[in-house]
Amino acid sequence: MVVRIGLGKLGNIGSAPLLEFLLDERAERKDIAVRVVSSGVKMGADHVDDVAQTLIEFKPDLAVVTTPNATLPGPTKLRETLISSGIPTIVISDSPAKKAIQDIEKSGGGYLIVEADSMIGARREFLDPAEMALFNADLFKVLTVTGAFNVLWQEIDKVLQSLQKGEAPVLPRILVNKEKAVDSSGLNNPYGRAKAIAAYEIARRAADLTSEGCFVVKEWERYTLLVAAAHEMIREAARLADEAREMDKAEDMILRTPHNGEGAVLRKRKLLEKPSKPDSPPA
Amino acid sequence: MVVRIGLGKLGNIGSAPLLEFLLDERAERKDIAVRVVSSGVKMGADHVDDVAQTLIEFKPDLAVVTTPNATLPGPTKLRETLISSGIPTIVISDSPAKKAIQDIEKSGGGYLIVEADSMIGARREFLDPAEMALFNADLFKVLTVTGAFNVLWQEIDKVLQSLQKGEAPVLPRILVNKEKAVDSSGLNNPYGRAKAIAAYEIARRAADLTSEGCFVVKEWERYTLLVAAAHEMIREAARLADEAREMDKAEDMILRTPHNGEGAVLRKRKLLEKPSKPDSPPA
Amino acid sequence: MVVRIGLGKLGNIGSAPLLEFLLDERAERKDIAVRVVSSGVKMGADHVDDVAQTLIEFKPDLAVVTTPNATLPGPTKLRETLISSGIPTIVISDSPAKKAIQDIEKSGGGYLIVEADSMIGARREFLDPAEMALFNADLFKVLTVTGAFNVLWQEIDKVLQSLQKGEAPVLPRILVNKEKAVDSSGLNNPYGRAKAIAAYEIARRAADLTSEGCFVVKEWERYTLLVAAAHEMIREAARLADEAREMDKAEDMILRTPHNGEGAVLRKRKLLEKPSKPDSPPA
Amino acid sequence: MVVRIGLGKLGNIGSAPLLEFLLDERAERKDIAVRVVSSGVKMGADHVDDVAQTLIEFKPDLAVVTTPNATLPGPTKLRETLISSGIPTIVISDSPAKKAIQDIEKSGGGYLIVEADSMIGARREFLDPAEMALFNADLFKVLTVTGAFNVLWQEIDKVLQSLQKGEAPVLPRILVNKEKAVDSSGLNNPYGRAKAIAAYEIARRAADLTSEGCFVVKEWERYTLLVAAAHEMIREAARLADEAREMDKAEDMILRTPHNGEGAVLRKRKLLEKPSKPDSPPA
Amino acid sequence: MVVRIGLGKLGNIGSAPLLEFLLDERAERKDIAVRVVSSGVKMGADHVDDVAQTLIEFKPDLAVVTTPNATLPGPTKLRETLISSGIPTIVISDSPAKKAIQDIEKSGGGYLIVEADSMIGARREFLDPAEMALFNADLFKVLTVTGAFNVLWQEIDKVLQSLQKGEAPVLPRILVNKEKAVDSSGLNNPYGRAKAIAAYEIARRAADLTSEGCFVVKEWERYTLLVAAAHEMIREAARLADEAREMDKAEDMILRTPHNGEGAVLRKRKLLEKPSKPDSPPA
Amino acid sequence: MVVRIGLGKLGNIGSAPLLEFLLDERAERKDIAVRVVSSGVKMGADHVDDVAQTLIEFKPDLAVVTTPNATLPGPTKLRETLISSGIPTIVISDSPAKKAIQDIEKSGGGYLIVEADSMIGARREFLDPAEMALFNADLFKVLTVTGAFNVLWQEIDKVLQSLQKGEAPVLPRILVNKEKAVDSSGLNNPYGRAKAIAAYEIARRAADLTSEGCFVVKEWERYTLLVAAAHEMIREAARLADEAREMDKAEDMILRTPHNGEGAVLRKRKLLEKPSKPDSPPA
Repeated sequence: MVVRIGLGKLGNIGSAPLLEFLLDERAERKDIAVRVVSSGVKMGADHVDDVAQTLIEFKPDLAVVTTPNATLPGPTKLRETLISSGIPTIVISDSPAKKAIQDIEKSGGGYLIVEADSMIGARREFLDPAEMALFNADLFKVLTVTGAFNVLWQEIDKVLQSLQKGEAPVLPRILVNKEKAVDSSGLNNPYGRAKAIAAYEIARRAADLTSEGCFVVKEWERYTLLVAAAHEMIREAARLADEAREMDKAEDMILRTPHNGEGAVLRKRKLLEKPSKPDSPPA
Repeated sequence: MVVRIGLGKLGNIGSAPLLEFLLDERAERKDIAVRVVSSGVKMGADHVDDVAQTLIEFKPDLAVVTTPNATLPGPTKLRETLISSGIPTIVISDSPAKKAIQDIEKSGGGYLIVEADSMIGARREFLDPAEMALFNADLFKVLTVTGAFNVLWQEIDKVLQSLQKGEAPVLPRILVNKEKAVDSSGLNNPYGRAKAIAAYEIARRAADLTSEGCFVVKEWERYTLLVAAAHEMIREAARLADEAREMDKAEDMILRTPHNGEGAVLRKRKLLEKPSKPDSPPA
Repeated sequence: MVVRIGLGKLGNIGSAPLLEFLLDERAERKDIAVRVVSSGVKMGADHVDDVAQTLIEFKPDLAVVTTPNATLPGPTKLRETLISSGIPTIVISDSPAKKAIQDIEKSGGGYLIVEADSMIGARREFLDPAEMALFNADLFKVLTVTGAFNVLWQEIDKVLQSLQKGEAPVLPRILVNKEKAVDSSGLNNPYGRAKAIAAYEIARRAADLTSEGCFVVKEWERYTLLVAAAHEMIREAARLADEAREMDKAEDMILRTPHNGEGAVLRKRKLLEKPSKPDSPPA
Repeated sequence: MVVRIGLGKLGNIGSAPLLEFLLDERAERKDIAVRVVSSGVKMGADHVDDVAQTLIEFKPDLAVVTTPNATLPGPTKLRETLISSGIPTIVISDSPAKKAIQDIEKSGGGYLIVEADSMIGARREFLDPAEMALFNADLFKVLTVTGAFNVLWQEIDKVLQSLQKGEAPVLPRILVNKEKAVDSSGLNNPYGRAKAIAAYEIARRAADLTSEGCFVVKEWERYTLLVAAAHEMIREAARLADEAREMDKAEDMILRTPHNGEGAVLRKRKLLEKPSKPDSPPA
Repeated sequence: MVVRIGLGKLGNIGSAPLLEFLLDERAERKDIAVRVVSSGVKMGADHVDDVAQTLIEFKPDLAVVTTPNATLPGPTKLRETLISSGIPTIVISDSPAKKAIQDIEKSGGGYLIVEADSMIGARREFLDPAEMALFNADLFKVLTVTGAFNVLWQEIDKVLQSLQKGEAPVLPRILVNKEKAVDSSGLNNPYGRAKAIAAYEIARRAADLTSEGCFVVKEWERYTLLVAAAHEMIREAARLADEAREMDKAEDMILRTPHNGEGAVLRKRKLLEKPSKPDSPPA
Repeated sequence: MVVRIGLGKLGNIGSAPLLEFLLDERAERKDIAVRVVSSGVKMGADHVDDVAQTLIEFKPDLAVVTTPNATLPGPTKLRETLISSGIPTIVISDSPAKKAIQDIEKSGGGYLIVEADSMIGARREFLDPAEMALFNADLFKVLTVTGAFNVLWQEIDKVLQSLQKGEAPVLPRILVNKEKAVDSSGLNNPYGRAKAIAAYEIARRAADLTSEGCFVVKEWERYTLLVAAAHEMIREAARLADEAREMDKAEDMILRTPHNGEGAVLRKRKLLEKPSKPDSPPA
């Protein structure tokens, strides 16, 4: 059986752009079919309706909605439309989404809230296409090495397995904080794990500066400096994440967990060894 | 008038995941509406039909197709379906797409071929979700700083302006090589530009190793090392790109070109100055 | 006239060990006499009494108390004893001291609270003499480059000037946050200032991890990792601070503000120029 | 029994500001009481008398004097006053103190001379409070990682143990050179030890430039460059020391030697293990 | 018996300047006598005759010719003169020499063609003595760590051993590509080997830019930037090579293969162990 | 007129391997003819005779001898043979050659003694071909950036100019110390010059460790660590030199001084400008 996954992407958060590739990194899986629909950066009601409609037409077995701040009207509407259509739905969002947890649980949805998925420094004096792309590049590095991305795809994979077996899926309801992330990182060196926690926190705290810079401070010279500082924090977090991964390279202990064609997750540590199916799920 | 842009994304190339955000980095533009549809990593005929259908239903004024190797049947079909529906269509692809140039031109399409957008090291012994994400993060950094991303959004913006004015759009037909990219990078320091060219070439040449590792070499220990080396090249190219950008920070000369709400491109160099509308387009 | 300054140092905070040297970095000043008394890491009542007694015997014109968490009984007692002896007293402390602000103001004292002066990761599984020294070395670098140290000595210098003139001193009451610090840093490059703000925040947020690791988490494997992560944050903040300063070296724009023999503050920017007395105080 | 230690600090050397914290890094020891007295940067006779008096009143079982160039009149007087009061006294000083060795030995004192504890670049055109603090931060890093600080606290701890047992203390008489330091560093990786030796020598040789720049060269442009070069050497030595320590992190082999509440030294190597009392003293 | 080696160096390639030292790195070998003759950068017929004459007078048992592009008339003449004098001759050259392979084989000569030994950016607007020296320094680092230099001296050593035994020498005919080099590098960490392959390819591809910049592009602003970019690639390749070697330091696994006084090659891995004669030749 | 230069190279010092290329970095000069003769690492009498003979046969207008420790019998003999043949002769050597200064002057020779040209760590437990090559690569970088190489070729160029004009040459007699080197470095940023002085001194002081490790210490574990530390110093000095040069790149102020075809030295600072003949010689 091929399980159908519909991804509805609203706005931009760091957890969204690579999501479908995390599920099938070498385009080998035969057990899933994916459809991604997005209205780009727009999150208004009309766009959301259209995205919802297209996703529903795809008849997905599972829907995943990625969105900044899941409490906003647009994301809320998309989530509710999908759920009310009987589609099991997981919301992936950032820290402000914590306030939506109760609502999501009540409606029967799942969620994966990534604390380090910080808001970008969205001020016209600072943010242009290049700065936006660099912020995302650095953030992807942080979310990868610290294990946050691993939580995302592993939790979705679990649901896919249930659906594959015809079981009623148990949707994930997880706040991905520093310890949850790093537990899923596969990092072997304990100092590497400490660096990853540090990177996660630095990335998370960058949001304090972007929200201060975007919503609180009014003088343009001040907020420009604040959002610039936030991006420097993300760049630094990426550097630290890279350092953590290099530590595992230095001992030839990088954990690799490729999917095979059936969607199973294989494992290996040494670069020059074959991946194999573990008896237990990846830790 | 709101110009409608439909993005059809097939498979994964470095130029694709952030494309819609490059066009409207702070979600302020009122002059465009974007719809993104993707079948994820799958590029087979059935998926392509569905993606084409959804895009056509959106009634876009402009279609952009992102795809690895635009000569493959799936991407070809998507492009042809869109063009034959009367939609002006631009193909964004990587080096192997050079062989499709004649076909695209004949059919009236446009293209933006990004030479440094190298194939990933898609071997099961090496590529897992984390390694995939890190490769992309590094590649985004290279494509941003070297100017390749600037070429993409600036060329699309030009077409959008024509459509806005009700003119028949002239679709871009550009091979984004090292000099074309860096000319669009806005880098001020000439050593920074030299470093950017170096980064571009290192990234471009990584594809020699991934294609050798994926298509030529059969012994798994050898190809594993080759694709690992290619990813080290990309990581190094990203480091060099970062170094180039830091050079412009060191002289407070980073070029910033944010879009305003009407889709016009503003310009500034000093961090603590206001962006303004240039008389001439960004160089 | 020689103004007498008594420094009472309790426990250890990053702002304390170099304080007397910040006031007279080349041992040239003839306008001040300094006495430092400390009970080392001990902050109990008996030690505090003895420190207070020795300081009072020195007959200082100004007393400065450095202490972690100025709300604790020991520091409170030392401060109150000095103030009640009629000695103008400034308390230098860290973030938890914010709760003592009202008390200090009521008693007529001054304060300089340095937000980035984070608590160390004081867990026996982690903190040994070497780790303690490295944490302090990194923290000193952060507090120097971000401007926090400049606030300390410049504010004390202001009081000394008043005393020198026989004026009643106005004691400083300042919360040294990221912007206050960087405004005093003398950093010229705006990206350097952004990096300094980032470094300040990273250092400040390290305290979230050390306090979680020292006071909240009970499982030793978890708290060991948390405090180790906090020290990685400080190390990273120091690296970023260093990067900020190197930026000003790259343009030969390091601000230098040496004291001369009379305690006046001179200024210069270019390495190969003579410092001179500015008309206005250092910005 | 609580052993009383009186620290008299004259002027500034790198070995002084953190000394009391090296003895009790987490403020847990119940076996010692510490009093620190300092006249700041001043080392004149009147200041020294006062410091000596305060220390003697504390009735220490052991006195430690930290001072640059122990041959100068002030430090000599302080040392002699303490010794003639019957207090076992250890002098901690820098390379120029080698000329005082015979005198100290004759008078029955101990000494710990740290060769890498280089003089600062004390020229008004260069040295301001910030530069002073950065020099010390870098120097602390060097003295920590190379093992010099370990020699200091371990030797004092030995004396404290004798005093604790009521034995007549044998005072240390040690020239801390590159090999003595690194033997005490606990560094595990031999390349890390080689890097530490290199860092130690670079730091030691910085003094050649500061003394040339402060005492020999008269043209201000020349001496400014020389003392600036010396500080660059110290910064580089710190970077190398950091690299050495990161090597031990990379193999999870950092030696940690925390004091427990009774002043005993525990040991551990792996980050996630408990420290324990070794049968033999730390190597 | 002492084997006599005559080195004729024409022009400059990275494999030449250190060649005689690679054969006898500590000046201990008693089994060889070396004579080096060079006409510096000149490769014209008259110079070549003179070099050939001097070498022939030395009566070498083996001649080695180093030259860029072995197909040029000068190098060809030198090689042919030596071979026709009955001297076994090995040519060491760079990628363009591939076209000379057939000729060399036909004449009975040997060759070692080092693909990464890239042409320098020989444009007057860019290349001065300092830039030339830096390019070589970086290139030497790449050729050393990636194993290319090891191939050179090990192959010459094999011929020397044959000559020593009075055997007819089998001259090497080897294209030193990325895998051949790294197989000889002795690098232990597989990620280090991947980085070395990456460094080798980056260095090799620098030649694409220098040849484009020196032979194809005519506009001086363009070619200056291209050759500058090529040198940035070499600098980056050197940095990556350094990183690879540091990885083996981090595990104390650097392979060392010193010659002893009899010209035998010893082996060791740990820094603090004695080298010893292996039973089999170094891998 | 073509001036003939004979280079006799004995043993290995850092100033030797690239010397002929420093004089004609792009192989364009028509005003000089160069012959290099070397006996490799051997410096015994028989080898020296042969080298001298070959050089004399070349009839050079100027001879340059490169050698470690010019006081040794072999180098002394070579120098004296050349001088007594009436050939103006310059000796290039390292610090131990200072003892030969008087002799060289008495015999009418010139000298260029490069203090930072440190002896290598020539212990069999440490030094193999790879380590030798890396030491040289790092040393070349130091000698280039700090200006030492500039002194060498500029001084030889001066003599060549005299000979060209038919004047009696005044041979250079220069001790290249830190200030002499950096004055010739062309470095623009004063912090870059400070870093260069630091690099020079670190490189110079590495010789203290290699000579201690090679001639004083007998225990192999100790001397192995000492010579390894010396090589770490050189690696660090190279890193610092690189940092100094990058500073001038950051302001687009790299001084370039290419030779033209007539042997004149051109000058430029900006990367994208044409070099031109200065009115005065390069400073």
